[in-house]
Amino acid sequence: MASTVKKAKKSAEALVDESEALELVDGCQNAIDALNEQASEEILKVEQKYNELRKPHYQRRNEYIKRVSNFWIVAIMNHPQISCILEQEEEDCLQYLEKLEVDEFEDIKSGYRILFHFEENPFFDNTVLTKEFKLGSNGESPSSTSTTIKWKPDHDLTKMLPKKMDSNRRKRGLENRTFFDWFTDNNDPINDDIAELIKDDLWPNPLQYYLVPDIEVEPEDDEDGEGGEEFGEEGDEEEVDEVEEEEEKA
Amino acid sequence: MASTVKKAKKSAEALVDESEALELVDGCQNAIDALNEQASEEILKVEQKYNELRKPHYQRRNEYIKRVSNFWIVAIMNHPQISCILEQEEEDCLQYLEKLEVDEFEDIKSGYRILFHFEENPFFDNTVLTKEFKLGSNGESPSSTSTTIKWKPDHDLTKMLPKKMDSNRRKRGLENRTFFDWFTDNNDPINDDIAELIKDDLWPNPLQYYLVPDIEVEPEDDEDGEGGEEFGEEGDEEEVDEVEEEEEKA
Repeated sequence: MASTVKKAKKSAEALVDESEALELVDGCQNAIDALNEQASEEILKVEQKYNELRKPHYQRRNEYIKRVSNFWIVAIMNHPQISCILEQEEEDCLQYLEKLEVDEFEDIKSGYRILFHFEENPFFDNTVLTKEFKLGSNGESPSSTSTTIKWKPDHDLTKMLPKKMDSNRRKRGLENRTFFDWFTDNNDPINDDIAELIKDDLWPNPLQYYLVPDIEVEPEDDEDGEGGEEFGEEGDEEEVDEVEEEEEKA
Repeated sequence: MASTVKKAKKSAEALVDESEALELVDGCQNAIDALNEQASEEILKVEQKYNELRKPHYQRRNEYIKRVSNFWIVAIMNHPQISCILEQEEEDCLQYLEKLEVDEFEDIKSGYRILFHFEENPFFDNTVLTKEFKLGSNGESPSSTSTTIKWKPDHDLTKMLPKKMDSNRRKRGLENRTFFDWFTDNNDPINDDIAELIKDDLWPNPLQYYLVPDIEVEPEDDEDGEGGEEFGEEGDEEEVDEVEEEEEKA
């Protein structure tokens, strides 16, 4: 009996100590949490600063890109994931895309918008189609909205295109979406993989996709193979070759 | 004929201009890349600073945690993903785990190590088992290494345990790994999901897992329901209840 009591008492003491220790652990966690929050704030400030510093370069880039016909549709068509949602008729439509912009909100945390600037075209009357994401800090849930497209008569691509489900799309988890399905669909803004690919991959460096050689179109120019470094470390040999080909034709 | 020639000439001029424009776009990309690199450097400095500031709190936390018997094994067993790889015999072994540490390398970018400190135990002679990840900047490929475990005779858990594949594991993509399979396997360091869960989830806040109430063990204590805020915003009512139960028993 005595030993049982002793054991119970020891266990009780141990539990008091453990309980105290857990409160101290919790205190450490609070201190760590506070530091994490400070770190996030400082990192946000760095990101905001560089967002501002990058802006003029992106603006200049937009002006240069305008001088290259079909730049954006070529880059989009060469993008391994984004190209998957493009139907033929949508490619025809995106030939009129003259400027793409990704505009992060001043505070970054709260959202961004993707702007598609179009030339006059046979499909719709809008000159800018915007898809905007609010990331929903402060307890709001994330949401997205997109410009209502003013389709010209008999040109509504969201109605004209068959809802296909080919094996290639299914494999990539993109199911039966088309480009304008994606643009108009705001049901699941958190999992908008296409928007994220545009913001984080296409927009930061579209040149790498534009320069992917389109082998099917110009197979006769495949012979010349002199390398070069005109396009910096980002451009591999094949990319540079294609630009040289264009220069030679010029 | 004249119109063909004119068209060709125009196209040639256009190509010269496009080629120039692409070089200018590339110049913008290089400027953007340089800014990205500067931003990464600044963010790394912030992270390094806060890593240092967090260290003393983690060290204090380790000391407090030592006063709570079975803290780490309970937290691990309550972790939804990490618990999935634990075999019964491994749970017995991890009862002797008295300290867990995650140690990020000074420059963060290059890697981290997870240290498991053990009391004297019937399974192996080591006092520390370390699994270390080199993330492979500067062109090196990522790699991991782990301490060779000096198993005591007839206690090598990597040989004793049956290679099972139950449906629960298969669902989570963890297949037929056990804890020591994970520890000793360094074949695919890039996809080491368990190491990442330890580093980015268990280590930053193990208390949330330790405090998950273990309903099966003490069903008779379920009645008392007074809330409390001793464990701050992190602890929900159920968690606080459990600590109170321990205090009441004390």
